[in-house]
Amino acid sequence: MFEGAELGRKVSKEDYKAEEPELRTRLLAAQRRAWQAGLPVVVLISGVDGAGKGEVVNRLNAWLDTRGLEVHAFWDASDEERERPRWWRFWRILPARGRIAVLFGSWYADPIGERVSGETDDAALDAELARIGQFERMLTEDGALFVKFWFHLPADEQQRRLKKLAKDPKSRWHQAPDTLAASAARHDTFLRVAERVIRETDAGIAPWYLIESTDRRYRDLTVGRTLLDAIEERLANHAPANGRRFSHAPHLPEADSAHVTVLDHVDLSRALDKAEYREQLEHYQARLNALTWKAWAKKRSCVLLFEGWDAAGKGGTIRRLASAMDARLYRVLPVAAPSDEERAHHYLWRFWRHLPRDGRVTVFDRSWYGRVLVERVEGLAEDVAWRRAYQEINEFEQQLVDHGSVLAKFWLHISPEEQLARFEAREQTPYKQHKISDEDWRNREQWDAYKAAVNEMVVRTSTEFSEWTLVPANDKRFARIEVLRTVCERLAAALDEDRGGD
Amino acid sequence: MFEGAELGRKVSKEDYKAEEPELRTRLLAAQRRAWQAGLPVVVLISGVDGAGKGEVVNRLNAWLDTRGLEVHAFWDASDEERERPRWWRFWRILPARGRIAVLFGSWYADPIGERVSGETDDAALDAELARIGQFERMLTEDGALFVKFWFHLPADEQQRRLKKLAKDPKSRWHQAPDTLAASAARHDTFLRVAERVIRETDAGIAPWYLIESTDRRYRDLTVGRTLLDAIEERLANHAPANGRRFSHAPHLPEADSAHVTVLDHVDLSRALDKAEYREQLEHYQARLNALTWKAWAKKRSCVLLFEGWDAAGKGGTIRRLASAMDARLYRVLPVAAPSDEERAHHYLWRFWRHLPRDGRVTVFDRSWYGRVLVERVEGLAEDVAWRRAYQEINEFEQQLVDHGSVLAKFWLHISPEEQLARFEAREQTPYKQHKISDEDWRNREQWDAYKAAVNEMVVRTSTEFSEWTLVPANDKRFARIEVLRTVCERLAAALDEDRGGD
Repeated sequence: MFEGAELGRKVSKEDYKAEEPELRTRLLAAQRRAWQAGLPVVVLISGVDGAGKGEVVNRLNAWLDTRGLEVHAFWDASDEERERPRWWRFWRILPARGRIAVLFGSWYADPIGERVSGETDDAALDAELARIGQFERMLTEDGALFVKFWFHLPADEQQRRLKKLAKDPKSRWHQAPDTLAASAARHDTFLRVAERVIRETDAGIAPWYLIESTDRRYRDLTVGRTLLDAIEERLANHAPANGRRFSHAPHLPEADSAHVTVLDHVDLSRALDKAEYREQLEHYQARLNALTWKAWAKKRSCVLLFEGWDAAGKGGTIRRLASAMDARLYRVLPVAAPSDEERAHHYLWRFWRHLPRDGRVTVFDRSWYGRVLVERVEGLAEDVAWRRAYQEINEFEQQLVDHGSVLAKFWLHISPEEQLARFEAREQTPYKQHKISDEDWRNREQWDAYKAAVNEMVVRTSTEFSEWTLVPANDKRFARIEVLRTVCERLAAALDEDRGGD
Repeated sequence: MFEGAELGRKVSKEDYKAEEPELRTRLLAAQRRAWQAGLPVVVLISGVDGAGKGEVVNRLNAWLDTRGLEVHAFWDASDEERERPRWWRFWRILPARGRIAVLFGSWYADPIGERVSGETDDAALDAELARIGQFERMLTEDGALFVKFWFHLPADEQQRRLKKLAKDPKSRWHQAPDTLAASAARHDTFLRVAERVIRETDAGIAPWYLIESTDRRYRDLTVGRTLLDAIEERLANHAPANGRRFSHAPHLPEADSAHVTVLDHVDLSRALDKAEYREQLEHYQARLNALTWKAWAKKRSCVLLFEGWDAAGKGGTIRRLASAMDARLYRVLPVAAPSDEERAHHYLWRFWRHLPRDGRVTVFDRSWYGRVLVERVEGLAEDVAWRRAYQEINEFEQQLVDHGSVLAKFWLHISPEEQLARFEAREQTPYKQHKISDEDWRNREQWDAYKAAVNEMVVRTSTEFSEWTLVPANDKRFARIEVLRTVCERLAAALDEDRGGD
């Protein structure tokens, strides 16, 4: 693969001087149009040591309007980063719509580095590359443009450069000469791994550009022109490759019995009397308290999310959970309308933002499932957007679980009759009136549409690593205990696993 | 002081039941009006161990609308928090306008804890309390409401409670019985320190409320009513105590010679020829590179900020700085219009957000001085707001410097004639046209107003720990070297200090 970047291509000083001004002008115009169009651009700077990646970053800084540009270098992770799923540190710096982010080092650095050093095997590398593919596809479908550069040098040229750099007080190699020797020693392995990585992640939606870097002028002009083309092409041709992994629900016959949903199988008659409730509440709250302290000691985080019909009792249930835990261990996050910063990113960004550190609990009062519930039913998300969300959500939750987080998802289910009774009661009780609005009454009219959405949500996102718990909630006491019990079981199972299942 | 909270006050079950519904209704109404009025409310929960602070938090969670409520518990700091000035962790969770934040533990916990344990002395405590006073005053002047609760128990009641809690599996004391013994042992010292802290920080603008906590019903009703009163009073009476530490510029005579500013003393004739420039550029870039690596090794962060006339050459100067540093060590932050999340906080919030971790460099291209420059001149900030900003900025920078950050502030100065020439040149050069807009021409008409603002800014914010560098920038080469040289000197001086000045 790399032969194509060892051809000795170069650009003379005169040619460079002749081309550069027009290129800059066009790049700036493209950047401005990307801003107007709300196109987020992610430029990855990768490649062999000594190829001048830092110089390229400086060049882009000089050519582009820095007011719309961000440069992020990935290096040592902070503990806040290490204590969350691997991708958290990348999500936190994704550019908002209309901005350009240049990433120096990226999600490719660790997978390559760990494979080169032998910490991982090919299978682990492939799994990581599949995840990278999913991530890049997801953001591309959301409208982002990826431009991935790989800077290459022939082996002898690299050796020559690194030796020179080691003597240059301005180079980081001068600071860390041992890294230099290590880099030289593993050159062949590095290229072999890199080739595999580039090949497997060179998707049509997020292609790699291999740049010969022996000649600086050739390198920089090629980067500039390639970036320009990529932005112009995307702006001219709005829709990125799309529609690969949508949900498609079968078209059901008219008969009522054909419209049975998972919710119809929930036994709403289940109830607890007051004495049982009191006893079990005390029992499970104490157990939950102990388990959350144990999870803290073992550095396992926990994500609990609640969806359900309006007035199904999410708030009261969450309070019983929360009051069992030490305030230092948990946060409750009510999910309301997104801020403009949140709207300027992929819809999952606002949830990544709030993932708990290891050992902590975050309770989401409504969640990322809004995409396939309210946004679907009310038409707030485009059809293609909510249809692909199931897959995106499954991948997101898989990452949580892979990191070691305990995830539990609850749908609090009540009957339409019970909802009506509660709405009416709320209107009678002064301190409950704030909980009922015209919107609630409007949502109620969409009962069947929501029911279909809930059914599809449960079917598509109850995975082996993250199943839904459908909670019969016509009886509030039963629902609260059911939730507490389930959370305790999940936590206990996860913590037991660590001990080898004893 | 605490005798007033050992009176045996209580509320019967019947009275509680009679009062609670109306209190909840009124609290919810007050919360809604605070939301509409954009009033941020900060509720501090402090006091002796065993007083039931967690119960109070749960009660507020039950009473208030959780959609507008955040609970934050302060406990072990993350490294991202430790690697920034002490207040960073508090700034990052300040509530947006209209929201209520309940802080369990707060900026009072460490100063009290460190004084009780003997790590600090009274002078250090007083210094910290003065800082707390400044912080609370600043946010109050910006419109925030502080409601600070101190929960007290008589000594014997506390002993009884803690013993009982140690046996309760749901209590954190059960998890850490050693803490319990420690807490009992230091009871008297704790109260002595607490009394001093409460007395010295019981400002009219952010008062303490001492709450007797022996009886839970009395405690919770008193908290609810106090919070309600505080919100209602503020809503009825918009202006908090204000206007204490404004800037007041003398009223100058008409004569031109009375209007000389610090800028008139900048020698704009200074220049460098190309050869000198090249040589010095190479020298100082190499030196800066080495110094930033050294600062990284010594975990010293560095904040560089640039202000100056339009077209004074900030961008070009910053590029020369940036290209000397390793991309992993620095970030350049162009300061543009704030996002809605940023607008919903004190204006310094958006700068606190981006402070560098220890060992890193952040370059601000424009900065918090916008408050006393463009916002003042264009009338974007109220008169009282920019007048108090000098003091706020000085306190902010003091905290940076106290943390060990190296701070350098540059005003790039050019003459109006030079600016005109550059504007015209920009309009001729295609890839520079984006740098010139109608706004630049409009700003130019305000030259004298900006000049007065710059003069006052330099006079009021050139402090012994953070002085301004006024850079003659009619000659770009001279300006760039001057900046590089200054940054190197500051860094070198700071790093030398660590070695005891050798």
